[in-house]
Amino acid sequence: MLSQTVARTHPLAGIRGEMVGEFFGTMVLILFGCGCVASLIFFTDFVPLNWMVIAWGWGIAVALGIYVSGALSGAHINPAVTLAFAVRGKLPWSKVIPYWIAQVVGAFVAAAILYFIYQGALVHYETVHHIIRNVAGAPNNPINAGVVWYTYNKPFVGIFGAFCDEFLGTALLVGVIFALIDVRNQPVQANLNPFIIGVLVVGIGLSFGLNTGYAINPARDFGPRLFCLIAGWGPVAIPGPGNYFWVPIVAPLVGGVVGALIYDFTIHKALEIKEPPITDVEVRGRSVREAPGDD
Amino acid sequence: MLSQTVARTHPLAGIRGEMVGEFFGTMVLILFGCGCVASLIFFTDFVPLNWMVIAWGWGIAVALGIYVSGALSGAHINPAVTLAFAVRGKLPWSKVIPYWIAQVVGAFVAAAILYFIYQGALVHYETVHHIIRNVAGAPNNPINAGVVWYTYNKPFVGIFGAFCDEFLGTALLVGVIFALIDVRNQPVQANLNPFIIGVLVVGIGLSFGLNTGYAINPARDFGPRLFCLIAGWGPVAIPGPGNYFWVPIVAPLVGGVVGALIYDFTIHKALEIKEPPITDVEVRGRSVREAPGDD
Amino acid sequence: MLSQTVARTHPLAGIRGEMVGEFFGTMVLILFGCGCVASLIFFTDFVPLNWMVIAWGWGIAVALGIYVSGALSGAHINPAVTLAFAVRGKLPWSKVIPYWIAQVVGAFVAAAILYFIYQGALVHYETVHHIIRNVAGAPNNPINAGVVWYTYNKPFVGIFGAFCDEFLGTALLVGVIFALIDVRNQPVQANLNPFIIGVLVVGIGLSFGLNTGYAINPARDFGPRLFCLIAGWGPVAIPGPGNYFWVPIVAPLVGGVVGALIYDFTIHKALEIKEPPITDVEVRGRSVREAPGDD
Amino acid sequence: MLSQTVARTHPLAGIRGEMVGEFFGTMVLILFGCGCVASLIFFTDFVPLNWMVIAWGWGIAVALGIYVSGALSGAHINPAVTLAFAVRGKLPWSKVIPYWIAQVVGAFVAAAILYFIYQGALVHYETVHHIIRNVAGAPNNPINAGVVWYTYNKPFVGIFGAFCDEFLGTALLVGVIFALIDVRNQPVQANLNPFIIGVLVVGIGLSFGLNTGYAINPARDFGPRLFCLIAGWGPVAIPGPGNYFWVPIVAPLVGGVVGALIYDFTIHKALEIKEPPITDVEVRGRSVREAPGDD
Repeated sequence: MLSQTVARTHPLAGIRGEMVGEFFGTMVLILFGCGCVASLIFFTDFVPLNWMVIAWGWGIAVALGIYVSGALSGAHINPAVTLAFAVRGKLPWSKVIPYWIAQVVGAFVAAAILYFIYQGALVHYETVHHIIRNVAGAPNNPINAGVVWYTYNKPFVGIFGAFCDEFLGTALLVGVIFALIDVRNQPVQANLNPFIIGVLVVGIGLSFGLNTGYAINPARDFGPRLFCLIAGWGPVAIPGPGNYFWVPIVAPLVGGVVGALIYDFTIHKALEIKEPPITDVEVRGRSVREAPGDD
Repeated sequence: MLSQTVARTHPLAGIRGEMVGEFFGTMVLILFGCGCVASLIFFTDFVPLNWMVIAWGWGIAVALGIYVSGALSGAHINPAVTLAFAVRGKLPWSKVIPYWIAQVVGAFVAAAILYFIYQGALVHYETVHHIIRNVAGAPNNPINAGVVWYTYNKPFVGIFGAFCDEFLGTALLVGVIFALIDVRNQPVQANLNPFIIGVLVVGIGLSFGLNTGYAINPARDFGPRLFCLIAGWGPVAIPGPGNYFWVPIVAPLVGGVVGALIYDFTIHKALEIKEPPITDVEVRGRSVREAPGDD
Repeated sequence: MLSQTVARTHPLAGIRGEMVGEFFGTMVLILFGCGCVASLIFFTDFVPLNWMVIAWGWGIAVALGIYVSGALSGAHINPAVTLAFAVRGKLPWSKVIPYWIAQVVGAFVAAAILYFIYQGALVHYETVHHIIRNVAGAPNNPINAGVVWYTYNKPFVGIFGAFCDEFLGTALLVGVIFALIDVRNQPVQANLNPFIIGVLVVGIGLSFGLNTGYAINPARDFGPRLFCLIAGWGPVAIPGPGNYFWVPIVAPLVGGVVGALIYDFTIHKALEIKEPPITDVEVRGRSVREAPGDD
Repeated sequence: MLSQTVARTHPLAGIRGEMVGEFFGTMVLILFGCGCVASLIFFTDFVPLNWMVIAWGWGIAVALGIYVSGALSGAHINPAVTLAFAVRGKLPWSKVIPYWIAQVVGAFVAAAILYFIYQGALVHYETVHHIIRNVAGAPNNPINAGVVWYTYNKPFVGIFGAFCDEFLGTALLVGVIFALIDVRNQPVQANLNPFIIGVLVVGIGLSFGLNTGYAINPARDFGPRLFCLIAGWGPVAIPGPGNYFWVPIVAPLVGGVVGALIYDFTIHKALEIKEPPITDVEVRGRSVREAPGDD
């Protein structure tokens, strides 16, 4: 094994390694996540597809992203999770910006890979439906191909409604994650927590996905949107119709923190009073999202 | 850690903490559960959706509700489960009413949050389909938007048929839950019991969901229905066409008790004779629905 | 605890208790299994449904049937599994007929309960589609409502083809189950084997379900078919068009044994040579389908 | 137990036993995998089907193939996985060709069994749609029945695009598998790794499946294609339109190795620096894909 000195100066040691984890975790998340949207948007003329493709596609994407990076960085793969952990003292504040950078870069790179992989389907789709990429058309019909990468609000959902939807979705995401990893509660064991968190995201997609496309993750929306800005979508991507681009950044950040606070000051607080925590011996495997700053 | 005295006088101690658990567990249940119905009712013009959205949406909703509140209150999140536990001596009778109140209030609050979040989609839906909220239209076409919140019987299913369907669904729900948490049987370990109970609810939705919308939980139906009463649906919500509102309250309560009794006096009784229970050491994690009154 | 003498004379002791297990396990299997077919056949005019409802409905049905009866009788809930266990020395031959009886009776009772529960939907369906129950119509259009209870071969699948399909489906079912419970292989732990066996049945439904409706279980087909015989379907149920009724009895029985033999004399034999079995200590929980005659 | 000498000369000992494992594992994979495609292609006139049938069908197929052969051969059931393990020193190079042969033969036999089982449906489909088997028709409409067995690129996806899609899909498959079995990361325990790898394949199907039909496994495509060559498809199978047949062989082999290298030299390397591996005691069950050459 490497000596301690070597380890510290190694290019993958410490925060650099954690950034590698967040980069690859978020890249896997976006590859699978936006990939399933590409299926729904580009291939409906070829095979019957439905909303379950999106719901399960994103859920599995989250699970795989966590499995890839969990032991290295805690697998936030979402700036809203990172912020909530920092606010609750589970991550040093100094790591927040590096994590966010790694997450957005990972999402951006994944967006570029998808653009390359789905090039043929994209051109075919835009040609058949007479879509001009950087002109915002009538909402929804035909749908601009950019929605494979970034989210948008349905025509009857205003900016305020979209903000609330993203806020609620992320509050549920982070609040339930806090429950799922709380050793005083019923933390999933056998290293199956990533799978159950994936199922949680399936649930968010089924129940809160259709108002805005459930970004519930600033990096998931902003990274690919940034790519679209330079790949021909221009103002349709950023700032987007109605300057939408800031909503899936700000709402999840705020919602995630609120969800974490609600959990910690209700259920978690009541559990603290009720009984001592499960000991380490009883908890199998490594905690999925144990913040690296804890040890 | 807090001293014992502080713990007892803390606002989250004892039954108050358990009520907090049931409140949040049921709130999460209804947020995800009724949320997926909103997807199916409001968004069919935008993306292909089908019954799997409902079946998996409610199944995941149940799993998440249990994960949130399991260690605190035992995660009944259903008055029929609470009653069955009391009848079988797994919960003190004095806790039944507090649990029921927490469950109904949690469901009511979730219904209000969903009304707020889906405001745009609701108005759009009612406008496009020319629906007057508090007038019961021809059954099923167009469907009154209230069915996002409360259940109803299909036109060919009379009150008696609906009662039997809700009775059977809840008997299966509670009976199988009793099997899933019976330490003499094959209790799911690694804290994955909430997931398997969620799968059970997916199964009930697929196989018994369409006659009446499978309330199988008095709080799930009555809490949101109460909200609808004051949110513009009036008599269409309560008492509802044909005075339906009492069916999803009474039938699940009776069915759940019967399901529990059937399990306990057949399978469980035979297992008692057959072999000693698994020891605590062998059972991994905390029992998912171990009634808090047991210890 | 009861004394040994009391236990032996108790009405639920020994083979009687095991028959209770098989009865309830198979009843739960058929309630959920045929119930999901009722959804697909009776409710397509009300909500979009598809083959996934059948595939997951039956898969979950199997998982729940095993969870209910697993520790009591080993949860065969399928005469083909019982026969394969007997042939391989995992069940005394004297238990085969009692198990079969309990399984068929459980399936029959479940069929009657479903008939009662879906009475309104059944009458509505038959009325709207002008179906005379005991007259075999043109194949497939409109589909006789009896297919909710019993299976049938598609028009282009002859008796021989149907036999082969049921044979292969059951060989895969039993062969893979033998792999899933082989302590020298990778047996699923944490009492999640019933879930994975359910997933196996989902797979059989997706990949081999459509030629014949995949009975792959003599009790699943014959019990409900017997009920239909006396509930108005008469010769359309038994012997059925082309005397079909014997196929889903004989083919699964033979296929299951062959699947078990193939597994035992290839993979299992090679594993015996390769390495010693996992010790009891390493295997978590109770073996899902450990035959009760083993101990 | 057999003596060591007997064991070594036994026809199922050593590499022969491992080849039996790969043969049956890949056979089960293709039976379930291509079987679900047969459902989608042949039965759309009878029941609503959609892409989820393919995605879950192949995912479950992979899980079952691994459960069948895991403890015997490590359950590669994919030449790209075998090559990646050899490149990374997890399998002796001398075993690569025997594994590949067993995998392709297993896939070939499964293809023949499916041809036999789906004979009626195949003839019906070709008759109704006026398809001449060995004449490549206009792409996609009507679809040549051979696509049940082999993959093809969508009309707007050129050979280069198809190569990149298969490359990426297999890189993700192998890279994430390396994460899932890395004892320094969060390896799934309780022998549920095969299930989670199945879920990974569901994700690949949902997100990268539609450009080329996601072979991501040379044996999965070439074995059945070889069968089709001699079963009447002739040049439409091999070399196929545009000489396509080499793409799903070469691209997965290269992609798998690249995926393995990326994982090992980023995440795995960073984990090596960060902390010692989990000890054997902590890891439950047998490692799913532990290469047999390791011990």
